Amino acid sequence: MKKIPIETLRTFITDLWTAWGGRREDAALLADIYTGNSKRRMGHHDIHNLPQRIDAVKNGVIDPKAEITPVASYGAIESWDGHSGAGEISAMHIMKRACDLAEEHGIGFATVRHSNHYLSSAPYVCYAADRGFVGLILAKAGPTMGMPGQKGNLIGQSPMGYAFPTGLDPVMLDICLAYIAYEPLKLLADAGGSVPIHYGVDRDGNPTTSAAELLAGTKYPIGEHKGFGLALLSELLTGVFSYGAILDEGENDRPYRGMTHTAIALKTDALMDRETYRNRADELVKRLRARGEGLHIPGDGSWEAERKTEEAGVFQIEDDLLEKLNDCAKNAPYFTVPVL
Amino acid sequence: MKKIPIETLRTFITDLWTAWGGRREDAALLADIYTGNSKRRMGHHDIHNLPQRIDAVKNGVIDPKAEITPVASYGAIESWDGHSGAGEISAMHIMKRACDLAEEHGIGFATVRHSNHYLSSAPYVCYAADRGFVGLILAKAGPTMGMPGQKGNLIGQSPMGYAFPTGLDPVMLDICLAYIAYEPLKLLADAGGSVPIHYGVDRDGNPTTSAAELLAGTKYPIGEHKGFGLALLSELLTGVFSYGAILDEGENDRPYRGMTHTAIALKTDALMDRETYRNRADELVKRLRARGEGLHIPGDGSWEAERKTEEAGVFQIEDDLLEKLNDCAKNAPYFTVPVL
Repeated sequence: MKKIPIETLRTFITDLWTAWGGRREDAALLADIYTGNSKRRMGHHDIHNLPQRIDAVKNGVIDPKAEITPVASYGAIESWDGHSGAGEISAMHIMKRACDLAEEHGIGFATVRHSNHYLSSAPYVCYAADRGFVGLILAKAGPTMGMPGQKGNLIGQSPMGYAFPTGLDPVMLDICLAYIAYEPLKLLADAGGSVPIHYGVDRDGNPTTSAAELLAGTKYPIGEHKGFGLALLSELLTGVFSYGAILDEGENDRPYRGMTHTAIALKTDALMDRETYRNRADELVKRLRARGEGLHIPGDGSWEAERKTEEAGVFQIEDDLLEKLNDCAKNAPYFTVPVL
Repeated sequence: MKKIPIETLRTFITDLWTAWGGRREDAALLADIYTGNSKRRMGHHDIHNLPQRIDAVKNGVIDPKAEITPVASYGAIESWDGHSGAGEISAMHIMKRACDLAEEHGIGFATVRHSNHYLSSAPYVCYAADRGFVGLILAKAGPTMGMPGQKGNLIGQSPMGYAFPTGLDPVMLDICLAYIAYEPLKLLADAGGSVPIHYGVDRDGNPTTSAAELLAGTKYPIGEHKGFGLALLSELLTGVFSYGAILDEGENDRPYRGMTHTAIALKTDALMDRETYRNRADELVKRLRARGEGLHIPGDGSWEAERKTEEAGVFQIEDDLLEKLNDCAKNAPYFTVPVL
């Protein structure tokens, strides 16, 4: 375990992405996104994921030089092509566009195809909330979720999230529509943990409470047909609206290769003045806190972790992660980045 | 049990609403909504609910003469005041507005406060899909849903639904965000049925598989904190954006009395031509059907029931429902409606 100052990691990520061929402004954005999620201690969805991104560049899955280009637009809605760039860059691009469109039309909708994994929803929806908008983002990936009565995986686990500003911390949800996402399930399985019986089935389709057996089997959507129906809406709004991939469409066949995302933003002071909006959004949170003692409002854990990290001023980086990051630094094709 | 021809019931409902003081055009719309849901055999959310609506008129909860008035608008988003009219009328009004706004801006968002129960999401989202739009509707009602670790009810069960057109039947989801809605739970409880253990707790906060004990206790949201987070988004988009009631705010205190709804529509041929959209939406459904044998696509059950009812040409009305409907007809204040 090594303590790395926040700004040191930010500079390291910026240099690393540039050294692997990325544009400087994309590198700065990636550094913001990875340090932001790391401050919130999102585990698998923070700095722990960066070596995988560099691997994806190495393997040609991500093109770090990709430029996002417009496909079609109509009033407050737009579609874009990510040209196999980093998912984080595409996702932030469409959220910015959704906010700009919402500034003009009250609501904005932007979708992108040929993208890649965007880490988690938090960075994009927090960006929107920081600008005073409600931000909602949906992602479509390959089928990793089943349904009771069905064999195997049918549909994506539909990562999604939203944030909205209040007078205090934003409310922020960052989830997928399976009972449990792949990454926390993997951690639980590695630790020999168990899961509630309704989370899914083992590889033979039998009920299980073993995280390891579920990992090898099929996860179910929240509320079964309800979560499945919501995941299907996500497929429509991302895959169909972006004219990108749907369900299991050829991972390697253009035009349907890659992941798709959709961002929606709403102007909070469109129908009332900003103060009225903030008072009402605050009232919503306050009334919930008053009803439930110790009730967890979406985002509570993230803001607490963020404050703790900022107080400490450093990240605690495990030795194996440090080694992976330093390998990425040493092997960069354009220039060598100083190791952490 | 009595067989009532479809058109006879439609005329009866139109006359009944008019005889209770409603405008003729509202009465025709209500008749469409109630016969439509009855064709789809939605049980508690069809003709079975009409006597409750008439009771609400009698008790002054619903004003059948209410006119919906504009509150605020900005580009593609609008808010309206339902002035305590029927929820069905308000909900269809905002969905129509959302579609009109989407025709102009690609996406449309309309919200209404001071509304009432809107029966179910199906009529409004089907209206949008029939016009070629994706339709999404959200409703906010009083807190009827809890959370693990918390006592009692915290938040509304968030009725919601969507529909989108394909080349064949629309895909249509009509759900709430509790594991089980009040009405099906009531039916199950009356029949002495059981529920999965994760659906909620009894009145003392203990786990239960008894539908009757759950009915007297607290229902949980789908996926616990995930469904709770989605319900909170619904509170924001309906209660806050309409400047209406949030959570448990004074059921009888204006300006926060009544229910709030929000409709969102998306133009399906904004980013691609109509044929391309339909082909891709069809492909989504076809690929799902190919992956899952006998897989239920949202709406399948409704379209099958609708076709069966239309073939039969009649509704089967139970004696006790018939008696209630005829009582409403006989006691109407403006004129007496011929009984069924």
